[in-house]
Amino acid sequence: MAIITMTTDFGLSDGYVGAMKGVILSIAPDVTIVDITHDIQPHAISQAAFVVASAAPYFPEDTIHLIVVDPGVGSERRPLVLETKKAAFVAPDNGVLTLVLQHLEDTRSDYRLFHLTRRKYWLDEISRTFHGRDIFAPVAAHLANGVAASKLGKEIDDPVRLDLPRPQPLPTGGFRGRVIYVDRFGNLVTNIPAALLGDRNGWCVEISGHLIPRLSQAYADVPRGHVLALIGSTNMLEIAVREGSAALMLGLGEGAEVLVTPMASKGS
Amino acid sequence: MAIITMTTDFGLSDGYVGAMKGVILSIAPDVTIVDITHDIQPHAISQAAFVVASAAPYFPEDTIHLIVVDPGVGSERRPLVLETKKAAFVAPDNGVLTLVLQHLEDTRSDYRLFHLTRRKYWLDEISRTFHGRDIFAPVAAHLANGVAASKLGKEIDDPVRLDLPRPQPLPTGGFRGRVIYVDRFGNLVTNIPAALLGDRNGWCVEISGHLIPRLSQAYADVPRGHVLALIGSTNMLEIAVREGSAALMLGLGEGAEVLVTPMASKGS
Amino acid sequence: MAIITMTTDFGLSDGYVGAMKGVILSIAPDVTIVDITHDIQPHAISQAAFVVASAAPYFPEDTIHLIVVDPGVGSERRPLVLETKKAAFVAPDNGVLTLVLQHLEDTRSDYRLFHLTRRKYWLDEISRTFHGRDIFAPVAAHLANGVAASKLGKEIDDPVRLDLPRPQPLPTGGFRGRVIYVDRFGNLVTNIPAALLGDRNGWCVEISGHLIPRLSQAYADVPRGHVLALIGSTNMLEIAVREGSAALMLGLGEGAEVLVTPMASKGS
Repeated sequence: MAIITMTTDFGLSDGYVGAMKGVILSIAPDVTIVDITHDIQPHAISQAAFVVASAAPYFPEDTIHLIVVDPGVGSERRPLVLETKKAAFVAPDNGVLTLVLQHLEDTRSDYRLFHLTRRKYWLDEISRTFHGRDIFAPVAAHLANGVAASKLGKEIDDPVRLDLPRPQPLPTGGFRGRVIYVDRFGNLVTNIPAALLGDRNGWCVEISGHLIPRLSQAYADVPRGHVLALIGSTNMLEIAVREGSAALMLGLGEGAEVLVTPMASKGS
Repeated sequence: MAIITMTTDFGLSDGYVGAMKGVILSIAPDVTIVDITHDIQPHAISQAAFVVASAAPYFPEDTIHLIVVDPGVGSERRPLVLETKKAAFVAPDNGVLTLVLQHLEDTRSDYRLFHLTRRKYWLDEISRTFHGRDIFAPVAAHLANGVAASKLGKEIDDPVRLDLPRPQPLPTGGFRGRVIYVDRFGNLVTNIPAALLGDRNGWCVEISGHLIPRLSQAYADVPRGHVLALIGSTNMLEIAVREGSAALMLGLGEGAEVLVTPMASKGS
Repeated sequence: MAIITMTTDFGLSDGYVGAMKGVILSIAPDVTIVDITHDIQPHAISQAAFVVASAAPYFPEDTIHLIVVDPGVGSERRPLVLETKKAAFVAPDNGVLTLVLQHLEDTRSDYRLFHLTRRKYWLDEISRTFHGRDIFAPVAAHLANGVAASKLGKEIDDPVRLDLPRPQPLPTGGFRGRVIYVDRFGNLVTNIPAALLGDRNGWCVEISGHLIPRLSQAYADVPRGHVLALIGSTNMLEIAVREGSAALMLGLGEGAEVLVTPMASKGS
């Protein structure tokens, strides 16, 4: 039984998500639909890119990820399918797949991209305002039914990519990074991956004038209400407050700068 | 495998929706439950009527739509099932089916309405505050199991209907309508259907003193932040702002008046 | 087909819930996942305890309830499974199962508790910040696949329990209770069970200086906007406002005191 996940900015108060699920189940009645989220901020492509990249690796092979954050709906932006060894992603060509593509390239994994052009796999009537229902949902359902991605359109190699900030090495041996995501708990997720920080010892972290002298292992390593830095569940450096919100307490959000520097060695 | 959709004003923070799903799965273990929304504003019957009417047509045949927005729970208002050629709707008799009934009548489709009276198909204990769990959910599950609607109660022909505004023709050849729904993006959906506007050319739109000189095809037809009018995904005239909120920008909501008038012809 | 319900404080805007569902479906592809809620207030253990206790009884036998409200994640708090005759509960040992345990004991039902220690049933890599994904979700999925609870760890008998307020008898024959839960509609649910109030006649209710002279049967028993007291759908005394919010109208929330006293008898 195939799985289709959904990530959209449609919210859950209107009938949009329901209509998409109706379309999917009309074409692929036995599919299992899993909501990742419909609460992406309206038109927040980079937020959707992060959420999808963090959840998708935990799904079984052959899962189809349907992502509709689509401020350019009705314009010339292309609808896409990305086919990898383990999954497929159906999305508008607006950069929302940037992190997935980056990960595929970092791990030297094969992939193919197709511009969806075959109207046969869409609904009969295509609105100019809701391609989620009229193009993306039916295409995901046909993929779930076993239609090959290559049948859905023509191969391309120039997907739109977001210009996401990358951590910068510092002369001192540390890194300058940025907050790229704030979660529901107010945890500030940075763009500095665990891999850059070796065994995680010997680093101190500075954010907005606030100095954190070491990396913690868990929230519970500090008293309640205290700021800490740790490697979070997405394997990125996070700034958090135990049982509190770092975003609120520090007044920071996406884009805030963070410095990770080697601790002065003992005796120096 | 039967499908039951759910539309309620119960929100998702309490255990009410979970209890209803538990009841459904206890009676019909193999049913597929699809949430349309649980975020109808508390007691907002007309909002639920619109959301259900916009999503239901996209579901497969024989889908059962369970709708519980029920300010009159525990009073004498009747619990109903509406049986059509393609679907069934289980809901309180408070007007929430008005748009579905209107569409059936506009398209001359047959339907039957039954007042749910057969306690055999309800839970054993019926609270006076939560018929969603105790009456509507079990009835929907029994329908999914193949029980005929006619077995659930006695036929009626006088359902409660909301007095929804209809567009008024103007002497100039245009129409006076109203905003009937505001979606998450702040799009203002009116009660003026595409069918009234022919090929969609030659109309200008006025709302709250704001003049929109033509109908657009898509959001992307105007610059970001500009107001536009277009036929939306529910086939109704909508007032929108590209990548913005018309509701916030114009300060308007449900009930706001909109005028559609023929453009002065060239040379006049 | 086994059912796993989910109750968390993760919200629905991040990828956390999606990742947990991916883990579950990777291990138990045919399981039916039902969201009870992901909108527990962050770290609100007592709220989750109430929601789970109110929804779980409506699910079929052998349902597995997965509850992750886990402020102590990464500390020494134990991960648990509670096995009853009818269901299993997978949760951190922080008191979130208090009401379920209390109900089992009040009804003299057997149960067993196990401290999850067998890493074989967890993900290979265990983060210190997201045991929902790395421990609780895979354990729930293995239970769904038929693994016995006793294989998952070692039996314990000292679970953490919340010190929840219990109603106090008054010399007058009534009870002093507290609001323990506020739902989406602003209904104030108290800790006074219907069982204490006999046939429900002859009581008056006082809350924050507001006197309610009798128990109603249904919201519709009073005019719109009026305060009433009734036995709610969880079989507890509730203070409500018809088609309004008692929480807003009375300015009250969790912890507010409520007095139930016998009405003065006629002629006294």
